[in-house]
Amino acid sequence: MLAKRAARESAARLRSLGGANVLASRGMATENKKDGKVMHPDLLNRHIKATEYAVRGELYLRGEELRREGKEIIFTNVGNPHALGQPPITFTRQVCALVAAPMLLDHPDVDMLFPEDAIYRAKVFLQSKDMIPGGIGAYSDSRGALGIRKEVAQFIADRDGVAPTNPDNIFLTDGASVAVRSCLHALIRGPEDGIMVPIPQYPLYSASIKLYDGQLCPYYLDESTGWGLKPEELKRSIAEARSKGINVRGLVFINPGNPTGQCLTKEDLQGLAQFAKDEGVVLMADEVYQENVYQDERPFVSMRSVVAGMPELKDDVELFSFHTVSKGSHGECGFRGGYVECTNIHPGTVDEIYKIASINLSPNILGQVMMSLMVNPPKVGDPSFPDYNRQRKGTIASLRRRAHMMTDAFNSLEGVECVFTEGAMYSFPKITLPPKAMEAAKAAGKPADTFYCLRLLEETGISAVPGTGFGQEPGTFHFRTTILPMEEKIAEVVELFKNFHSNFMAQYK
Amino acid sequence: MLAKRAARESAARLRSLGGANVLASRGMATENKKDGKVMHPDLLNRHIKATEYAVRGELYLRGEELRREGKEIIFTNVGNPHALGQPPITFTRQVCALVAAPMLLDHPDVDMLFPEDAIYRAKVFLQSKDMIPGGIGAYSDSRGALGIRKEVAQFIADRDGVAPTNPDNIFLTDGASVAVRSCLHALIRGPEDGIMVPIPQYPLYSASIKLYDGQLCPYYLDESTGWGLKPEELKRSIAEARSKGINVRGLVFINPGNPTGQCLTKEDLQGLAQFAKDEGVVLMADEVYQENVYQDERPFVSMRSVVAGMPELKDDVELFSFHTVSKGSHGECGFRGGYVECTNIHPGTVDEIYKIASINLSPNILGQVMMSLMVNPPKVGDPSFPDYNRQRKGTIASLRRRAHMMTDAFNSLEGVECVFTEGAMYSFPKITLPPKAMEAAKAAGKPADTFYCLRLLEETGISAVPGTGFGQEPGTFHFRTTILPMEEKIAEVVELFKNFHSNFMAQYK
Repeated sequence: MLAKRAARESAARLRSLGGANVLASRGMATENKKDGKVMHPDLLNRHIKATEYAVRGELYLRGEELRREGKEIIFTNVGNPHALGQPPITFTRQVCALVAAPMLLDHPDVDMLFPEDAIYRAKVFLQSKDMIPGGIGAYSDSRGALGIRKEVAQFIADRDGVAPTNPDNIFLTDGASVAVRSCLHALIRGPEDGIMVPIPQYPLYSASIKLYDGQLCPYYLDESTGWGLKPEELKRSIAEARSKGINVRGLVFINPGNPTGQCLTKEDLQGLAQFAKDEGVVLMADEVYQENVYQDERPFVSMRSVVAGMPELKDDVELFSFHTVSKGSHGECGFRGGYVECTNIHPGTVDEIYKIASINLSPNILGQVMMSLMVNPPKVGDPSFPDYNRQRKGTIASLRRRAHMMTDAFNSLEGVECVFTEGAMYSFPKITLPPKAMEAAKAAGKPADTFYCLRLLEETGISAVPGTGFGQEPGTFHFRTTILPMEEKIAEVVELFKNFHSNFMAQYK
Repeated sequence: MLAKRAARESAARLRSLGGANVLASRGMATENKKDGKVMHPDLLNRHIKATEYAVRGELYLRGEELRREGKEIIFTNVGNPHALGQPPITFTRQVCALVAAPMLLDHPDVDMLFPEDAIYRAKVFLQSKDMIPGGIGAYSDSRGALGIRKEVAQFIADRDGVAPTNPDNIFLTDGASVAVRSCLHALIRGPEDGIMVPIPQYPLYSASIKLYDGQLCPYYLDESTGWGLKPEELKRSIAEARSKGINVRGLVFINPGNPTGQCLTKEDLQGLAQFAKDEGVVLMADEVYQENVYQDERPFVSMRSVVAGMPELKDDVELFSFHTVSKGSHGECGFRGGYVECTNIHPGTVDEIYKIASINLSPNILGQVMMSLMVNPPKVGDPSFPDYNRQRKGTIASLRRRAHMMTDAFNSLEGVECVFTEGAMYSFPKITLPPKAMEAAKAAGKPADTFYCLRLLEETGISAVPGTGFGQEPGTFHFRTTILPMEEKIAEVVELFKNFHSNFMAQYK
């Protein structure tokens, strides 16, 4: 029945479009093979072809090639802490081992191997109806286990001093990227819809907007004020978009910033909330680096708490907030655990997002377990608390030192300026290259920052990402590097970098 | 730069489209708010709204409601073995525990708790450069770890008697559903492109095709010959699609069948391969149930092996083959581990799929570990082999008994006919309802099978999926139930079902 109906609908639709010839005359592809291939690259979905994704682009691929050839590569292109030696937090992994192998719970010596609170926690996961009673091998609800969504709601409430949200407004996902993509997919209806995105940005946004056939409407962060957010730039951006006939539907911000590292103040966030209400745009709050803050003047403030504190708009601003287990002190990228909280989102829309999530059945369960452990960690008095706390704080303290080491090193170099990495995991220095280097880049047919990063990779093994991939003011050049190499290694990375840079500058003087 | 370019492009594109008014006149949404909401359900991406997904539709939601109210629900709506009590295979979970908590490897008593081969295997994962040297907390390559892709290539080679493929033609994914969606997304360019799908089908296909704005071109399986595949029906289907101006780009088949349970013969598969070559369509081989076979006449044959054995087309047929850790004897749904192998797919297209996979960074690592353990299990002589083998064979043998129990029970009932479940995890009985029941369904505003399944759920707690969601010959009604309740429980399920059905039939006599 479904099939017959689909066929009828499709026929009616094609008739209404005037049939395939009209499609062809409007430039849509009707060709079915090229060089003998149905799936020839020229005959794919055009949005897939048009999408660019820089973080794993030319530099990454060349780095992989060199690695396969046996060269040691320092992958500072992706925020992937464990790959660079950050150890997992012991307690979380003890619980993971027990839920992965529940037979250990029946072993007579289990309490010699695992602390009491890890054992207790594993039993709660496996025995509570709202957690994962089928174990990590069973699908959960497509939004994630109800009990874990309740824990996330409580975490947000405690963090922000607000009442816990309905857990059905929270979706657990295979990493925050999936959540971002789902929201953008629902929001963007076609080429007439635009999303405001900070420039420089994390390319997940430019790639997804392209993939869903929307318009990226750039607003520039101001490097001269530490990648500051300027209200007048927001206004300029939306006016420009509207002058082109674009419906601006959403606004993305990243706090702490990626790749720029700045932390927004409460006033910045209030300005964004007011803008969202005044202009009628949905806010997408990328807050995945909320634990990665390396100064005390601007602690992390969530958009959720800011909106809750503004009575004149608290029920109006439509907000998606994203978080993850991949960053912060856990850095558990490989678990693919993320969540999105929907605030003031129409329940019918939440249902639509749920329906689409259902097609993939369930987010992976161990990612959900890690999310639970992150938002509901050991408490003072629990046997694991002292070690847990030491590990968690130690990682952030070390990252703070590394943020200074990286920024200071960049700023000591000729032709390099770097805003201090206030938060997140990246430095994004600006490079001013001599004219001869610019000419050499042009001759090689590459943007100057790509040219520079390729040379850096070939000569030192350091894999960074050129600023082109994130967007930058025309005529400026940057690159992004993580601050993640371990402390004992970072001096060496800095030294490699300094030598490379001096030689490069000398060569093109 | 990226941003400025995007803005320029978007402006040029809108101009070429004639601006927003033209978009509006073509029926595209330009409205920005409804009832005060930007993300009003009526203002979402129309493909998302149009998508239907039955497996977690009305029946599932009502079941969840009843469960929250305290009623015991038997979830036979999703192939989720562990949720119904199937235990994990011990060896695989021992390795998972060790890779999750590598500190256990340093414990002096580790060899009292874990068999030697589990310890060895965990060390290979954590120490080999091509496996997961950053542990399960680090992102891998976006296609999955090279070492595990090599193991998959070897598994396919051993299974099919072919040379191992280049591992770069294999993508590890967060479950096979993600892989299916990626391929469909790349293949479908717009409403003029069609994908042939068997009816009844697994709704992942109808939902994804709708989401990517393509046309589902149905070909009907023949219930009277045990859901047989008829060459003339394939021809009818493609001719019908073409007569409507549809470019048929791909053909999906599911072997063993979901929801229909039939196993295809080598001759069936040869016919499909020939059809794909003759008509120029890409084959999508959903082979996730390849281990779930419950008779000996038609063992599983992979499309990969059939294509390799046909010299006249072995280099021509473009083929995607999907597999998963969620089904078979492992049934590890919650791990979200899947793969797709690309055969004769243009390298440029493989690159495009890689690029899009990169946006989500990495499939989850523990899902990759489980895939490795499934395709490269303990061998004869390994300490874990005897238990491993017993568990694996025991599960399939038990499912075979359950397939008979379910099918026999259905066939013993008035008005119910059920093709034997030769493979996969589902029975899909046809129900013929008395006229009074049909009228009652009509009065309730529901398709007859939905009406029947809702009554079944309310009265017995058994959650099944109505045939409407899978597609069926007009005028026929079916439902899908898994054969997964444990053997000691299945007699009770059958009894519940029989009683319900007799009462239902008596009520509407």
